[in-house]
Amino acid sequence: MLNPVELILKKRSGSELNSAEMCFMVNGFIKGEIPEYQMSAFLMAIFFRGMSKEEIVNLTRIYIESGSQIVFEEQYKTCDKHSTGGVGDKITMTLAPIMAACGAYIPMISGRGLGHTGGTLDKLESIPGYDTYMTEDQFKETVIKHRLAIIAQSASLVPADKKIYALRDVTGTVESLPLITASIMSKKIAEGAKNLVIDLKVGSGAFMKTIEDATKLADLLKFTGESFGQKVSIIFTQMNSPLGFAIGNALEIKESIEYLKGADIPDIDMITKALAIEMLLQTEIAGEAKVAINKINQVIANGKAIEKFKDLITLHHGNPNVCDDTDLLPKSTHILKIMSNKKGFISNINSQQIGYSLIKIGAGRTTLSSPLAMGSGAYLYKKIGDRIDISEEIGEVHTDNISLGSEVVNDILNSITVRNIKDFEIKPIILGKM
Amino acid sequence: MLNPVELILKKRSGSELNSAEMCFMVNGFIKGEIPEYQMSAFLMAIFFRGMSKEEIVNLTRIYIESGSQIVFEEQYKTCDKHSTGGVGDKITMTLAPIMAACGAYIPMISGRGLGHTGGTLDKLESIPGYDTYMTEDQFKETVIKHRLAIIAQSASLVPADKKIYALRDVTGTVESLPLITASIMSKKIAEGAKNLVIDLKVGSGAFMKTIEDATKLADLLKFTGESFGQKVSIIFTQMNSPLGFAIGNALEIKESIEYLKGADIPDIDMITKALAIEMLLQTEIAGEAKVAINKINQVIANGKAIEKFKDLITLHHGNPNVCDDTDLLPKSTHILKIMSNKKGFISNINSQQIGYSLIKIGAGRTTLSSPLAMGSGAYLYKKIGDRIDISEEIGEVHTDNISLGSEVVNDILNSITVRNIKDFEIKPIILGKM
Repeated sequence: MLNPVELILKKRSGSELNSAEMCFMVNGFIKGEIPEYQMSAFLMAIFFRGMSKEEIVNLTRIYIESGSQIVFEEQYKTCDKHSTGGVGDKITMTLAPIMAACGAYIPMISGRGLGHTGGTLDKLESIPGYDTYMTEDQFKETVIKHRLAIIAQSASLVPADKKIYALRDVTGTVESLPLITASIMSKKIAEGAKNLVIDLKVGSGAFMKTIEDATKLADLLKFTGESFGQKVSIIFTQMNSPLGFAIGNALEIKESIEYLKGADIPDIDMITKALAIEMLLQTEIAGEAKVAINKINQVIANGKAIEKFKDLITLHHGNPNVCDDTDLLPKSTHILKIMSNKKGFISNINSQQIGYSLIKIGAGRTTLSSPLAMGSGAYLYKKIGDRIDISEEIGEVHTDNISLGSEVVNDILNSITVRNIKDFEIKPIILGKM
Repeated sequence: MLNPVELILKKRSGSELNSAEMCFMVNGFIKGEIPEYQMSAFLMAIFFRGMSKEEIVNLTRIYIESGSQIVFEEQYKTCDKHSTGGVGDKITMTLAPIMAACGAYIPMISGRGLGHTGGTLDKLESIPGYDTYMTEDQFKETVIKHRLAIIAQSASLVPADKKIYALRDVTGTVESLPLITASIMSKKIAEGAKNLVIDLKVGSGAFMKTIEDATKLADLLKFTGESFGQKVSIIFTQMNSPLGFAIGNALEIKESIEYLKGADIPDIDMITKALAIEMLLQTEIAGEAKVAINKINQVIANGKAIEKFKDLITLHHGNPNVCDDTDLLPKSTHILKIMSNKKGFISNINSQQIGYSLIKIGAGRTTLSSPLAMGSGAYLYKKIGDRIDISEEIGEVHTDNISLGSEVVNDILNSITVRNIKDFEIKPIILGKM
């Protein structure tokens, strides 16, 4: 007879739990037989002791088996991407339509914003009428018929992860690589994606500060996905400054639309294409990178990518006309200009600080129940390495509240460090692949 | 504004919590504002990260201040002892009457047995009529008037420790030296003892396996007590075999009575006297050890010690006649002889195994709600180093259930290891002092 205290002690001592023991803990918790206070002590013991790869795969399997699973037939080249989260990260909106236009099938289950990073679902919901809810059957049908759908995690998909994540969030047990791995991978496997590209953010604004730490997480993610027969590629990308120029829900949708219609946004372009090439190779839609990049450029140039984004919006009951007239997106009542108070070359942008500051004007949230101001946010036209002058206009803050908006202007100015000479290294956006 | 998740993260990272932060966590938990699942994650983080001496003193103070405190006026030379727990440990019953007879004041708050070790309250309750309950006022009055009382922890004394201990017990967070220290010391300070002697058990049958580990705990206990103006002495004693010959509630009371009436029980005698000498010196009832030992021998020889034990029983509404006629104590229906199946010198006795085995016949318990069979238990006449022969009678099992009793006989036989020659070290009972 298994006993929760003995299993906590086993993990506390650094021993491995076998599959039956892990199952007893997780399923016991889900069924309400093991109380939250035992599970949280167990999770904290995992934080300190870690988990073996076998334990991680077992936990991932238990998570998946706690709910329903979506399975696509062999002929559908399904792929998805996951991002570990950044400021101004709108790559889902640029990547998914391109991939669908190139012939891939994209079953995407996305999340909401919390803390300094935004969430794909919040961004999409800034489009008038957009509804992220679908039943699993509708989701599967939509992906097969239209090649893409982006929905919220339903109650029946990996409920064990959902319940345990909620407990981790309030017990200081989020930052555990094994638990992060099982949480990410269980959803990405249960949704039916046969191929997965992970945009693993590295840098001061990301959870993984160094490429060494990022590589450890990458190895666990890849091992776990491959244990379930999924192809997994990891792209390490720099997260030292916000992506693109826009930060904020509707502002990011606007920027995504512009990109899909051909606008030149260098960092968004680099990451979108790096991920898209990888996906086209994984799904064997392209046999080599050169073919892949041609396909990508083609669907942007011939309008098929933006058409797919319109399709996506329509499928989710949103107004696709936002793609032709971005003025249909929600707007703030005030626009405050950000005038530089420094002169020199930008050597650092504290994007985490910017993300947290934007919560003040409702462009982000600290708890999942806080309301969002969909039109709020900021533009920052400058990147690391750019030269700025005193009184130069370097961005805008969009806000419904002038006083809080002014605070955000100051916070953004304070997040920027300059140097008189360009004597610092500018790291590339794409850091590596695994 | 303090936040429980941030404080969990602070402790998780190994930082120290200041007094206000510790207070926020513990009092928040007591008031029900911080849920059990956050407290248990916090406790597990403490298990892994430890606590500084300052944190331990703060936690102890918060525990003490969570309830009422008993204060004895300066003229009362109060002292108490604490044992970290052993099999057959009846030293409270032998020590307290001797100390009271020598003129000390003994305010004792004791515990119940759990797992392989017995509890003083259970043993006393095997005396017909004995009631461990007293209000705090009655307790203080009794100690002042009669020099001793041994009661259970009331709801108003260190309730914070009581509530947190209950959570630690079911979340695998008991074995933390800082938490153990605060738990022990808060009770010993709140009960009003100005002097404290701790019998710190060391060895295979104890929580502290080595003298090095025991010294770490001793240092924390001593530092904490002294921070509150309490004199604390630590006596390290060997816990590799059961103490005395009797194990079991009524059997141990019987043995304690015999000792107090002059019976020769070497290990009980050595520990009782070592602790008593220390206490007489602490309270300055004796100026030197020689005077102390004379006083102790005197109160045993002249019957004052056993009279004090009778007083104690009477004060607690028990029948003091058990001291004159131990047949008045509860008895088992069957006595099974333990006949040796080995020949040689006893090199090891697994007393933990014996303690756990005795739970089968109700001499101990695994949960606090399990009933006890007061008359059940065992005698083991042999000690490490003694020679035994095949078919020699080496003990007895007292039981109401012959079949389970027979299992205990076998378990005790199996707990004994013999060697053909006496080529092993026999460690002394008293290992050191601090």
